[in-house]
Amino acid sequence: MSSNIPYKTYLSEGEVPCEWYNVRADMKKKPAPLLVPSTLKPCTPKDLAPVFCDDLVRQELDDETAFFPIPAEICDFYRMFRPSPLIRAYFLEKALGTPAKIYYKFEGNNTSGSHKLNSAVAQAYYAKAQGLKGVTTETGAGQWGTALSMACAFFGLDCRVFMVKCSYEQKPFRREVMRTYGASVTPSPSMTTQIGEKINREHPGTTGSLGCAISEAVEAAVSNPGYRYVLGSVLNQVLLHQSIIGLEAQAAFRKLGEKPDVIIGCAGGGSNLGGLIAPFMGEKLRGESDYRFIAVEPASCPSLTRGRYAYDYCDTGRICPLAKMYTLGADFIPSASHAGGLRYHGMSPVLSELYDQGLMEARSVRQTDVFAAAQYFARTEGILPAPESSHAIRAAIDEAIKCRENGEAKTILFGLTGTGYFDMTAYQAFNDHVMGDYVPADEELEASFAKLPEVPAT
Amino acid sequence: MSSNIPYKTYLSEGEVPCEWYNVRADMKKKPAPLLVPSTLKPCTPKDLAPVFCDDLVRQELDDETAFFPIPAEICDFYRMFRPSPLIRAYFLEKALGTPAKIYYKFEGNNTSGSHKLNSAVAQAYYAKAQGLKGVTTETGAGQWGTALSMACAFFGLDCRVFMVKCSYEQKPFRREVMRTYGASVTPSPSMTTQIGEKINREHPGTTGSLGCAISEAVEAAVSNPGYRYVLGSVLNQVLLHQSIIGLEAQAAFRKLGEKPDVIIGCAGGGSNLGGLIAPFMGEKLRGESDYRFIAVEPASCPSLTRGRYAYDYCDTGRICPLAKMYTLGADFIPSASHAGGLRYHGMSPVLSELYDQGLMEARSVRQTDVFAAAQYFARTEGILPAPESSHAIRAAIDEAIKCRENGEAKTILFGLTGTGYFDMTAYQAFNDHVMGDYVPADEELEASFAKLPEVPAT
Repeated sequence: MSSNIPYKTYLSEGEVPCEWYNVRADMKKKPAPLLVPSTLKPCTPKDLAPVFCDDLVRQELDDETAFFPIPAEICDFYRMFRPSPLIRAYFLEKALGTPAKIYYKFEGNNTSGSHKLNSAVAQAYYAKAQGLKGVTTETGAGQWGTALSMACAFFGLDCRVFMVKCSYEQKPFRREVMRTYGASVTPSPSMTTQIGEKINREHPGTTGSLGCAISEAVEAAVSNPGYRYVLGSVLNQVLLHQSIIGLEAQAAFRKLGEKPDVIIGCAGGGSNLGGLIAPFMGEKLRGESDYRFIAVEPASCPSLTRGRYAYDYCDTGRICPLAKMYTLGADFIPSASHAGGLRYHGMSPVLSELYDQGLMEARSVRQTDVFAAAQYFARTEGILPAPESSHAIRAAIDEAIKCRENGEAKTILFGLTGTGYFDMTAYQAFNDHVMGDYVPADEELEASFAKLPEVPAT
Repeated sequence: MSSNIPYKTYLSEGEVPCEWYNVRADMKKKPAPLLVPSTLKPCTPKDLAPVFCDDLVRQELDDETAFFPIPAEICDFYRMFRPSPLIRAYFLEKALGTPAKIYYKFEGNNTSGSHKLNSAVAQAYYAKAQGLKGVTTETGAGQWGTALSMACAFFGLDCRVFMVKCSYEQKPFRREVMRTYGASVTPSPSMTTQIGEKINREHPGTTGSLGCAISEAVEAAVSNPGYRYVLGSVLNQVLLHQSIIGLEAQAAFRKLGEKPDVIIGCAGGGSNLGGLIAPFMGEKLRGESDYRFIAVEPASCPSLTRGRYAYDYCDTGRICPLAKMYTLGADFIPSASHAGGLRYHGMSPVLSELYDQGLMEARSVRQTDVFAAAQYFARTEGILPAPESSHAIRAAIDEAIKCRENGEAKTILFGLTGTGYFDMTAYQAFNDHVMGDYVPADEELEASFAKLPEVPAT
């Protein structure tokens, strides 16, 4: 470790970015607009106002403004857990014997355990600024619900979380973290919403799904005055907030006088990957620099690598707007993969469009290969990674090994989105050698694609 | 937040201390020596060599050398998770409306979740340097076992952890973290040691105790060639390694041009408190500066505030050396307090002597008051603290409120030793209002004191 590059690079408070970057502003061909489900017409601010708060609607629909100033209250909150470190993976490089330089941007040093807090605090802030009483949301694995609970506790907002019933029962510790932050956590489907009642009546004993929890959370928001619904991924606004990850990474690389060749992130709905690559993609779109971008998704839920680029519903309940995105179909039920945060049938419309334009690569990896990388990383770099993040680790290790084989000293950056402290059941399955690999058959995907909605060309 | 003091202060890598500080060197009256249990004579290096590795024996017995250089390999490992931030608790100050300035040194940003890693890596390094095959230890709550597993994975040492059986069963996630780092974890009492067999035979169905697990770990070390036993608290060597906490805090305060008036830490065996206060206590002992030091312990296990200063066994199995310390008696069984890391009958001999000389204060706090402080802190400062650490938070808040009442703008520093992510069962009890407060009766303590060993004056 004789290099003059430190193991960890922190920006000073004065160097921390004070604006979010909106990559859509630099895209010549923009992502397709959201559509209203009842009319299949592009969503207007009025269509979205009952669901999202006003400032967030503006951010959602604005594909021209490149930079949005970050409000001072959000900057203050960011100081609690940001800047996150850019870490030079010296120990991993040494263990792999690779000439590659490996960096990772680590977002896990906060109680939510992931990057989700970056957008949660923004969404809570705007809700508070609009004078709302509270927000509703759904959570599966629990990272997003935890992040939102923390943000709501800080701003004094009520927070109602619909947690997929099987997770509610299997992950009592996640639930308790949310309760400690003052959130109410309801197992979904519940009897507190009409849709929940209906599902419970039609499917007695069901343990719920993310799609159902979304529907309940949206219903709870629109039927309670002073409440709005918030979402932790997929949306343009979320990618905007998450750009803080990439902006910090970009500033840190400039400070070090270094530059990544390859940028890698895991991709579920796209919040982390979209945030990490945003400013670098901006450079590429403006013709200032070239980078390779790699999205890594689970082989069990391969929306980019095996999905269709089409309009589809964002939720299985089909009450949310339609988005044009790479999708496996809103009815596709991902297998019980342990990377809960990547079990989404679609992909951010921004990332989908960038991928479609050939500006980004994608690959899928199998679960056991992912956990082998996770364990290797934990033992060499000391951080126990989240299963989601470990998809990026797998690809980064594979790229570094390629560099060793080719004798290339490339600079690799990957996003380490979070820690795996609440995912030990999955690690246990791996440690006990009982973890399986599921890959959907072509027929399964074709059957799901057949149910994609028909949307007239606009 | 208009102050020019940043929310978080990190030392640059060049500013990080490269020596540990041994506070015993500046004590005029030294802590009393350890005694061999069979002879009640002071321990020599030869007495300790079968149990601890040679360099650690030297550190244990040396009360003259003020500074020990930190080996380069340990410095490298420290770079993974150190320097830890010194955080100005702006949000907590604001919420309390106090004129006090509150700082905390946060040791939880690593996978072990606590400061324990500071000594684990040192002990693993010296074992490796001596050419040993592996180490044995016990763990209760699991923080120490996790830290040691991480350190052993890094240095390629075998790591055998005896985990108190009830924790092994109640905390499967902690166990899985250790397994992920390659440690073998055995529920104690086990059938793999003579003492474990004996206890299982005499107490069928027992769920174990820390005292029993220590005895098993020591037996496993001395009866397996190439193995030594390691311990995470109480010992002089551990306080030496943990001085990195205080040295970094001292350097950060100098960098900021600030100075604490009061320094607060939770105290179980004393590893965190001893490390945090060491260099500041050195200034006080040398007459350079004055500070107030406050040790905070649970009312359920009040060794400093209600114990005796006497020679006692360090383990309930009575096979380890005797130490002169504040103790509740080696037979005292603390109630099932949720702060597992503070459930120790004795206290570091160094801290005991400093307390006895009136150089440090101590207070005890009740569990429900501690969790109220923990929840308040989580909601204002964003970090979900460990139950152990929350004892210090409680005292820091109480001191800050006193400042508000007296209109005093004191500067308070406390040690936030770790995070509570694996302690959600305790938080659940608090959230559900079913947490109790146990305070031992005077008669219970008197009965325990009556069993203290008789040691002739030296």
